[in-house]
Amino acid sequence: MKVVILVGGVGGARFLLGVKQALGLPATGSAPESPHEVTALVNTGDDVWMHGLRICPDLDTCMYTLGGGIDEERGWGHSGETWTVKEELAAYGAEPTWFGLGDKDIATHLIRSRMLRAGYPLSQVTEALCDRWQPGVRLLPMSDDRVETHVVIDDPEDPDQRKAIHFQEWWVRYRAEPKAHSIIAVGADEAKPAPGVLDAIAGADVVLFAPSNPVVSVGTTLGVPGIRDALRKTRAKVVGVSPIIGGKALRGMADACLSAIGVETSAEAVGRHYGSRKESPEGVLDGWLVSEGETVDVPGVAVRDVPLLMSDVDATAAMVRAAFDLAGVSVD
Amino acid sequence: MKVVILVGGVGGARFLLGVKQALGLPATGSAPESPHEVTALVNTGDDVWMHGLRICPDLDTCMYTLGGGIDEERGWGHSGETWTVKEELAAYGAEPTWFGLGDKDIATHLIRSRMLRAGYPLSQVTEALCDRWQPGVRLLPMSDDRVETHVVIDDPEDPDQRKAIHFQEWWVRYRAEPKAHSIIAVGADEAKPAPGVLDAIAGADVVLFAPSNPVVSVGTTLGVPGIRDALRKTRAKVVGVSPIIGGKALRGMADACLSAIGVETSAEAVGRHYGSRKESPEGVLDGWLVSEGETVDVPGVAVRDVPLLMSDVDATAAMVRAAFDLAGVSVD
Repeated sequence: MKVVILVGGVGGARFLLGVKQALGLPATGSAPESPHEVTALVNTGDDVWMHGLRICPDLDTCMYTLGGGIDEERGWGHSGETWTVKEELAAYGAEPTWFGLGDKDIATHLIRSRMLRAGYPLSQVTEALCDRWQPGVRLLPMSDDRVETHVVIDDPEDPDQRKAIHFQEWWVRYRAEPKAHSIIAVGADEAKPAPGVLDAIAGADVVLFAPSNPVVSVGTTLGVPGIRDALRKTRAKVVGVSPIIGGKALRGMADACLSAIGVETSAEAVGRHYGSRKESPEGVLDGWLVSEGETVDVPGVAVRDVPLLMSDVDATAAMVRAAFDLAGVSVD
Repeated sequence: MKVVILVGGVGGARFLLGVKQALGLPATGSAPESPHEVTALVNTGDDVWMHGLRICPDLDTCMYTLGGGIDEERGWGHSGETWTVKEELAAYGAEPTWFGLGDKDIATHLIRSRMLRAGYPLSQVTEALCDRWQPGVRLLPMSDDRVETHVVIDDPEDPDQRKAIHFQEWWVRYRAEPKAHSIIAVGADEAKPAPGVLDAIAGADVVLFAPSNPVVSVGTTLGVPGIRDALRKTRAKVVGVSPIIGGKALRGMADACLSAIGVETSAEAVGRHYGSRKESPEGVLDGWLVSEGETVDVPGVAVRDVPLLMSDVDATAAMVRAAFDLAGVSVD
C-alpha cells in the first residue's frame, strides 16, 4: 500500500510512528522487504537561515524521530544534545540567541548548508541526510524552493505600525504571544512542489493529513501551487485527522494561527476550512477524523469520531487504522 | 613605541605574549593607557574552508592565546573544548574527519563565515571577533584576499604523478610525512596586503619576525606583493628571531618546509634566506637573533646569540628585549 502523509514537526513525526506501526514497519530503521511505501510530505515553511546555517525544523524532527535520535521528552532535537556552540555564540553577542541550536544538530545543519550552497536541492540533501538516519519512510520536503512563513504582528517599537517576522521568531522567541494579524507564506506563489511530490500523491492508495498545525504546517504545504490540485485529482481517498480536541489545540499554539486566518478553534471549523473534495471548489478532504464523542458536520466529508490522543505509539497506530478504515483501505 | 611583528600560529602567539610582557602590557586583555602599540601581521596561508566554515588557524591561535582562551597544553584551540559536532559529522560520514574542529571553535568559524559571505573582508571580521577576546594587540591578517598554501607531494595513488594538497591536509592529516617537493602560495600573485598592513610597517619603530615557520608562516606573508618592499623601505630596523636552534626546528616540522624550498635547516641558512636589507636585492633583515653559543654569519646583518627557548613568558620577554636591543630601540 502506498501511503502519503502531510506532516509538520513534532505532532507529524509522532503520527508517522503510528503509521509505521499500523503498517507493521519497525519504529526506527527501514524495512526493505515491506510491501508498504510511506511518503511524508514535510512542511518547510518553518525553515530558516541562522548563523549561516539552514535549519529545517520539521524535516529534522521527522528524521530524528523516525531514525531513533530524537529527544523524546522534548519532542525535538537530539537525545543527549549539548549546547556548547550556542553558548559560545552568545559569548560573542551573536544574534539570535533565542533559538535552540544544539551541537549535534549543528552537524546536520553544516552538511545541509554546504550541500545547498553547492547547488543540491533540499530534496536531495534530505535524502543524503536520511542515508544515515534510515527513517524507513521517504521524507520529501514539500518544495525545494524557499517558502518562508512570516507572521504579521504589531510592531513592538511603534504600536501604530505592523511588522512581519519569521515564524520561528514569533513561535520560539515570543511563544506566539503577540497577536498574529495574518500569516504569509513568502515565496509560495513561485514555489514548485519538490520532485516526487505530485507523483506520490497521484500514485497513492491513501492520503492522510497528520494532526499537525492546519495553518503553518499542513496549510503551508497545501499552499504550494500544484499540491492542492493533485490532492483533488488523486484516485486515493484523502483523510484528515483533527488537531483540535474539545475546542483546544493539543500541541503548540495552533489556535493563535487559526484566529489569524479567521478560523475558529474547533474540529468542525478546521474540517470545513480544509473542505470537501466533492462539494467545495478548493476542498481536499474525503474523510475527517475527530475526537471520540464530538459531533461534527463537514458537508460532503465523511466524519468519524475516535480516540485521538497520541499518548503512545499503540494509541497513534489505532488512530491511523481508523483513518485507513475511513478511507476504505486495508493494510492486509 | 610602535611594534610590528610577523607571526604564524602557536609559536607566533607565544612570542606575542613575550612582546606584551616586554612592553609592560598585561598578558591578556587590552591596556588602553599604554603608550605602546603592537600590530601582528598574521599568516593566513593556512586558512581553509571545511564543512562550509572558514577556518583561520593562525589568527585564531593568536586571538585565543592573547585573549586568555587557548588550550595551553595543546597550544591551539580552546581550553575546555568539546568535540560533539566533529563526532556527529563523522557519524554522517562527512569528510574531512582528520581536522580538529572543536565545538567552541565552530562558533568562531560560524561568525566568521557568515560575515565573509555577507561581504566583510577578513580584516574587519577579525576586528569584530577580537571585540570579544581583547587580545591587546592589533591582529591584522596579512591579506584579505585568498592565499592558500599548497604542498606538492607524490600522488599516493600513482607514484609517477605528483599532486598538490592543501597545507592543512599535509600538516595535520599526514603529519608532514610525505616529502614536499615544493610549496605553492596559491593566489599570492594577485593578493594585496590587508588595509593597515603597509601603513603599520611604514610607521613602525621596530619590526620583528617571530620564530615562526620561515616558509609557510613568515615566508607566506613576505610573499604578498608589497609587504617585502614595505619592509625594505621602512625606517624601522627589522630583526628576525631564528626558529632553528642547533640545526633543529623547535616547533612543528619546519625542516620539511625548508628542504622543500632548498634551504638547510640551520639558523645561518634561514638568516641568509631572509637576507640583508642592505646587501641582498630582496633581503629584509637588519638583525638576526640566534641561539646562545651559535656562530652564525649573515652578510650585512647584525647577528646576536641569546637564549632562544620560549619555555615561559619571562624567557620569551627576555628574547624580545634582546631583539629590541639589537634593533636599537628601547621600551623606556
